[in-house]
Amino acid sequence: MEKEKGFESRVQELTDTILESYGGGRVIDRLEMFTQPDHQVIHELLEKCMRLIFPGYFRDYAYRIYNPKNNLSALVEDVAFHLNRQIAIALRDCDAGCPAVESRAEEITAAFLARLPEIRDLVDTDLQAAFDGDPAATGKAEIIIAYPGFYAITVYRLAHALFELKVPLIPRIMTEFAHSRTGIDIHPGASIGRYFFIDHGTGIVIGETTVIGDHVKIYQGVTLGALSTRGGQKLRGLRRHPTIEDNVTIYAGASILGGETVIGHDSVIGSNVFITYPIPADTRVSVRNQELQFKNGQGFVRADAQDENAAWFYVI
Amino acid sequence: MEKEKGFESRVQELTDTILESYGGGRVIDRLEMFTQPDHQVIHELLEKCMRLIFPGYFRDYAYRIYNPKNNLSALVEDVAFHLNRQIAIALRDCDAGCPAVESRAEEITAAFLARLPEIRDLVDTDLQAAFDGDPAATGKAEIIIAYPGFYAITVYRLAHALFELKVPLIPRIMTEFAHSRTGIDIHPGASIGRYFFIDHGTGIVIGETTVIGDHVKIYQGVTLGALSTRGGQKLRGLRRHPTIEDNVTIYAGASILGGETVIGHDSVIGSNVFITYPIPADTRVSVRNQELQFKNGQGFVRADAQDENAAWFYVI
Amino acid sequence: MEKEKGFESRVQELTDTILESYGGGRVIDRLEMFTQPDHQVIHELLEKCMRLIFPGYFRDYAYRIYNPKNNLSALVEDVAFHLNRQIAIALRDCDAGCPAVESRAEEITAAFLARLPEIRDLVDTDLQAAFDGDPAATGKAEIIIAYPGFYAITVYRLAHALFELKVPLIPRIMTEFAHSRTGIDIHPGASIGRYFFIDHGTGIVIGETTVIGDHVKIYQGVTLGALSTRGGQKLRGLRRHPTIEDNVTIYAGASILGGETVIGHDSVIGSNVFITYPIPADTRVSVRNQELQFKNGQGFVRADAQDENAAWFYVI
Repeated sequence: MEKEKGFESRVQELTDTILESYGGGRVIDRLEMFTQPDHQVIHELLEKCMRLIFPGYFRDYAYRIYNPKNNLSALVEDVAFHLNRQIAIALRDCDAGCPAVESRAEEITAAFLARLPEIRDLVDTDLQAAFDGDPAATGKAEIIIAYPGFYAITVYRLAHALFELKVPLIPRIMTEFAHSRTGIDIHPGASIGRYFFIDHGTGIVIGETTVIGDHVKIYQGVTLGALSTRGGQKLRGLRRHPTIEDNVTIYAGASILGGETVIGHDSVIGSNVFITYPIPADTRVSVRNQELQFKNGQGFVRADAQDENAAWFYVI
Repeated sequence: MEKEKGFESRVQELTDTILESYGGGRVIDRLEMFTQPDHQVIHELLEKCMRLIFPGYFRDYAYRIYNPKNNLSALVEDVAFHLNRQIAIALRDCDAGCPAVESRAEEITAAFLARLPEIRDLVDTDLQAAFDGDPAATGKAEIIIAYPGFYAITVYRLAHALFELKVPLIPRIMTEFAHSRTGIDIHPGASIGRYFFIDHGTGIVIGETTVIGDHVKIYQGVTLGALSTRGGQKLRGLRRHPTIEDNVTIYAGASILGGETVIGHDSVIGSNVFITYPIPADTRVSVRNQELQFKNGQGFVRADAQDENAAWFYVI
Repeated sequence: MEKEKGFESRVQELTDTILESYGGGRVIDRLEMFTQPDHQVIHELLEKCMRLIFPGYFRDYAYRIYNPKNNLSALVEDVAFHLNRQIAIALRDCDAGCPAVESRAEEITAAFLARLPEIRDLVDTDLQAAFDGDPAATGKAEIIIAYPGFYAITVYRLAHALFELKVPLIPRIMTEFAHSRTGIDIHPGASIGRYFFIDHGTGIVIGETTVIGDHVKIYQGVTLGALSTRGGQKLRGLRRHPTIEDNVTIYAGASILGGETVIGHDSVIGSNVFITYPIPADTRVSVRNQELQFKNGQGFVRADAQDENAAWFYVI
């Protein structure tokens, strides 16, 4: 009994110590709440948007589509209400004191909803690209239901629309949610064309100012990144990431870096290739050789460059 | 007030636009629901199967084992009921109009439950392999509770049993759930022997037609994949992925590709090695050298091939 | 009706088979529950600790801070109660029969809470490092809310404090939760200095005995690991992982391995470099060249070593 009290009173003292540490005036010491967008609400908004995009695929008992129109209407209103509120919070957080926040949030919300049919058209091209690209796919429904690359692209397309409408924070929260579920990190600022296909995808990074054309395929572990500089915050807004033209395929583990690096259309970039300069159209780039050594009980038996034509181009 | 109404009526109009976009007859336009397996139910089934496999480890207040038999009985019935239903939905979705769906689902469910003791025996060999392989493991309980590689293998073993029973969709939803939690992507169609050990594991991809023997160890970032082809859907069902024989170890970042690539028993494949042809038994394969350059304030100080015997074999 | 009964009675028989398989006396056959720490409770404890560290950022309707002190007090008591209980369970599980478990758990819980202000100071240095290092960051709030690398480091700092207090199992459950959400695998035993920055991060592995100084930056896919040995459990407790001194930057995909490998202060390690020996201070190490081949419709057009000065140093 005495001891139990001892622990409790120590916890009380420790509370004072922790509270004291909030007095530093640092960003981490902010106490006011409800001034940032709510992660949980944004994750739920993403799920609801998935239902708007694929009306038959992501079930919710609250929105059984007996009468598609009535039920869709309820779902759209729900999305409009919550998105509007979160956008207003995000705008207010970033532009404190801006008087027109409410009406700007409504403008943006309506503009986003108006873009949904166009986003659905884009997503349909991505679905076709995934089906055409993966022999293991048993059908398009399996891709919608189970493919992480397809999910990450769909979330990116939603987040990118909000990014273009200049919504702060929320687009990044959306793509980081997809990153967390899939290991695929697409910055909402990247610009990506139609028929985009990501297979497996864990470890993919696509930077903020990347531009990607139509019919591009990317495999796991690919980085479309920036060259190192010590510029830090001074580089904000500059073009730092590469351009990938139409019909390019980039195999697993390749890194393509720099704002002046353009991969010409119809090129194929082999696995583990590291590129920091432009590549002309219709080019296949691969690592020329990787010297391997082979050792058995008798010691080294041979050191061998792999066949020049050997495929550094692979899929799963 | 006026303005508020304005937003609401615009949302109403936008609902019509979105509804109109469902009229395209595309796969993404399907409106009927409840015809696919339910993700949430399958994730819960996985958790319940984990409790069946490790009866003392994954707690659920609903199934405290006061009387092991009574409580196990309730849990098995729960799994049987839900799994049976999801399998029937998956079969119906794929073979529309097949009259015998219900009885086939019951057959499959019973066959799956009957295999659980055998799956438990397999999982016990994986647990032993993880304990023997990782000096950081403080005990087998830590591995069961916290190791993502062990979790991904266990989910694969459950999904593979359903894959062998020809259940559509559900096995892939299971392995993609594990992929999402662990970054380890094992296709349920792969065939994997006893005492399988994955350490860390983020970025591992094991393709659909891979065959793996006993006592194989794999580290993070390893790909067991297919060579690139433009075959797409025409390649469905063909052998596209490698064979890994008994007692092989494959270190981080290695890629082994192609349906005719066999890694002979007791071989060791070094980090970042890229292999597209067969390797005989008892061979150690490593990258021969990687030329590094070293630069300090005075410019380049030396360019150096690493020691030939240097370990491209590593663990964490 | 008859058929339905058939299925049910088969399920009953299968229950017996599964129950029988629990009789093997293996670790996986343990039936007693509630003797391990509870994952769900530990995940919730992590979320509550995040609220203690960032009082304004991770909202919970139960703890609105109208009166910071009263509400903080409730939150600290909640964390103290649950953490104390989980620690007692973990200690009891590991040292069966130890009589002083309860008082040791209280000591540890109080010591952990007492360290929170110091952990907050450390986390504030990590926040500054992330803001300085990433031109895509629009502000510190975005980093706290959305950056997976920053989240993984914060979880590591909490888990490491418990690891130092010799709590079994719980620190690893915490870092594996972060690993699952971020793809970043930091062992709670690693020792990491101030101003630590991880960008993107998917695929990073930092081993148990790694030592990292101040102002270190690490990008995606980096491994700080152990050299391979066949020692397994015999190696427990030995120094197996590298030392990274102050102001070192390690770019994407580099592997640094071995307990005697020290990277000297102010060095820069390029992408995909593989290092198993010490590097002096102020050195830039990069892969000297990667021979690429370029092929177009006319066959091979050139085989080219990349520019020696080309950046194998990159960020996103």
